[in-house]
Amino acid sequence: MKLEELYSSLTIKTGAKLALIVLDGLGDIATAATGNMTPLEAATTPNLDALVQSGCAQGRMIPVAPGITPGSGPGHLGLFGYDPLEFEVGRGVIEALGLGMELKAGDVAARANFCTLDKKGVVTDRRAGRIATEVCEELCELLAKKIKKIGDAQVIIKAGKEHRFVVIFRGKGLEGPVSSTDPNREGLKLVEAKPEDPKNAKQKKTAKLIAEFYKKALPVLASHPKANGFLMRGIAHQPEIPSFEQRYQLKPAALAVYPMYKGLAQLVGMNKIEGPQTIAEQCQRYVAEFDNYDFFFLHYKYTDKYGEDGNFEAKKKAIEDFDAVLPILLGKKPDVLVITGDHSTPCAMKGHSWHPQPVLLHSACSGSDKLDRFTETGANMGSLGVFEAKYLIRLMQANAKMFDKFGA
Amino acid sequence: MKLEELYSSLTIKTGAKLALIVLDGLGDIATAATGNMTPLEAATTPNLDALVQSGCAQGRMIPVAPGITPGSGPGHLGLFGYDPLEFEVGRGVIEALGLGMELKAGDVAARANFCTLDKKGVVTDRRAGRIATEVCEELCELLAKKIKKIGDAQVIIKAGKEHRFVVIFRGKGLEGPVSSTDPNREGLKLVEAKPEDPKNAKQKKTAKLIAEFYKKALPVLASHPKANGFLMRGIAHQPEIPSFEQRYQLKPAALAVYPMYKGLAQLVGMNKIEGPQTIAEQCQRYVAEFDNYDFFFLHYKYTDKYGEDGNFEAKKKAIEDFDAVLPILLGKKPDVLVITGDHSTPCAMKGHSWHPQPVLLHSACSGSDKLDRFTETGANMGSLGVFEAKYLIRLMQANAKMFDKFGA
Repeated sequence: MKLEELYSSLTIKTGAKLALIVLDGLGDIATAATGNMTPLEAATTPNLDALVQSGCAQGRMIPVAPGITPGSGPGHLGLFGYDPLEFEVGRGVIEALGLGMELKAGDVAARANFCTLDKKGVVTDRRAGRIATEVCEELCELLAKKIKKIGDAQVIIKAGKEHRFVVIFRGKGLEGPVSSTDPNREGLKLVEAKPEDPKNAKQKKTAKLIAEFYKKALPVLASHPKANGFLMRGIAHQPEIPSFEQRYQLKPAALAVYPMYKGLAQLVGMNKIEGPQTIAEQCQRYVAEFDNYDFFFLHYKYTDKYGEDGNFEAKKKAIEDFDAVLPILLGKKPDVLVITGDHSTPCAMKGHSWHPQPVLLHSACSGSDKLDRFTETGANMGSLGVFEAKYLIRLMQANAKMFDKFGA
Repeated sequence: MKLEELYSSLTIKTGAKLALIVLDGLGDIATAATGNMTPLEAATTPNLDALVQSGCAQGRMIPVAPGITPGSGPGHLGLFGYDPLEFEVGRGVIEALGLGMELKAGDVAARANFCTLDKKGVVTDRRAGRIATEVCEELCELLAKKIKKIGDAQVIIKAGKEHRFVVIFRGKGLEGPVSSTDPNREGLKLVEAKPEDPKNAKQKKTAKLIAEFYKKALPVLASHPKANGFLMRGIAHQPEIPSFEQRYQLKPAALAVYPMYKGLAQLVGMNKIEGPQTIAEQCQRYVAEFDNYDFFFLHYKYTDKYGEDGNFEAKKKAIEDFDAVLPILLGKKPDVLVITGDHSTPCAMKGHSWHPQPVLLHSACSGSDKLDRFTETGANMGSLGVFEAKYLIRLMQANAKMFDKFGA
């Protein structure tokens, strides 16, 4: 029997409430430059401390596989229990989600950016001189106005920052991945988009659509001095992902502020709760919606943001800000509460990393690891050990007593 | 190469003696109600302490997979190194083993219970008013006398407690699983047993056999006021499991008191040593049989029993009782000694759970984790980490220097 089948066959609905709090990029590394402390260790967190001392299990989670640094897509898919190696989400899809674009099953999305072409069609600047965001917006509006459909496929265009934009193709019989049109360096012509699998009729149709899109779009841009061309990359369709509700027998809600995380939650079929703009408001809304859902995903961005900036003090402060609002959430204590990250974003590295993120799990039967605080070093000694993130929700379900015994 | 092949190809016989002591349901969780201690932590265990301080490796074992709570069957198969997802043992087989019935390869076993049928054959009581065990025994004797064979298949019937009994069909070309005859609620008629795979001729033959068994058995029971019918569930055959001796190149012996564990050991081809009724006697017998086998499995039930009862003090005492007899076993110290559980049975949960059980491994090359005691919290920090139980015997073999180096 496959493990997923076993989990499914043992699942029972209990009406338990589960909450997963993701402090994005929470994990960090201790370095001499920061007094051999991580932001989580340096932060003053009385509410987290009290929670830990009331009885928690801790451990560390490998986001994807040892040594793999995940982007937000694989990071969150893993957290939601979908093996990121099995459920691949194209860059175009991630980019579209990040811009808050709604994606439907079968949609093909591409990340694109304006470039400069010479008279012979050779790419002379792959970023069109990094045109201003406003210029990008104007050009995208122009393209959107001129190209609404190609054949039976709808074309949706949205500007991002500077030279970046996203194109979604919505129609029947489309599928990715299709190869990029980016020659990868200046001095070469645009490359023709090709199906990754030459025998796949849907990919062939998609590649043809890209070619036709170029035919219609290039004349629209022809007169622009810098942005008279564009590159398309990460051309992929939204994968079919079994819904979270079906997989776990839990009715899920997402409380996220940034479009990317709303989008990732939506990919697995979570219900987006719109409105809250701060972690305090997210916690308040969680309390208000407590009876309407079984599973809550709360996403907090600032731990990652300041990790990316390499700003230790600000990351520490972001953790303290979260700690300050934790009591709001604990006002309606879920049966199973998890606080973790989707990956580490060490300040010393100014970017995502592969270091397993610390995870804290609290429930009536989580037991106690007898630790005083929630920290990376403490989590190393926790009863959850070091495990792959894709098992997290299964552990939450176990703590919610959602699994029958396996065998007699 | 598959991992199992690698292990096999590297295995060498060394004449080493290995002992696996299973304190059933040993693992527990610390809760406020029990002073934030587990029974293992609260117990006074001078002999275990001395063993640990003499140099042991510790860790925690996931019985099957994260969050999965195993029954005794999957729990022990995992411990014996057989992936419980690959080697599934039906409920009927487990029930038969629990009643001390001998099973041969190819036997199909079903758990059954008496029920009450009305004149139209509708189930009016799925447990026949929970008839007394003596009544069940009388009825089973009657059935066994009247139905010895169906076609070329032998029929073996044994009473369990109250309304429960087990039927074994022994004949050529039989196989499970076959669906249950239980309508699962009162007010419905018995369901016809069907092959799980309609194309499987052996399952079809088994389903037909079940139907014929009903034809012969129902008239025998017809006059009984309550138990005039019966339900059959968990109809499965004993799986073919590669023998322990073949797999590990170790001649194994089982020293268990309860029939279930003798049966599970026998499933993998261990030699049952009969006689001992207490853990002290089991240890004495281990010493007496030391030269006759390479691998000893000792099973101790009471840690699980009192965990199931939620009786913290009794579970603690059961651990202390084991500790008291440990010196008998150490009188003939095996080259590799493991003390662990087959799963956790937290007192606070009054049942099996998914929490990884603590494991202690002692050998001349186990190294020392520099812990003072054998506890769940200590085991979290051990050098074995958190690992799947199916690797335990491989680790024992490694400690017995039974593996050649892999590659140059």
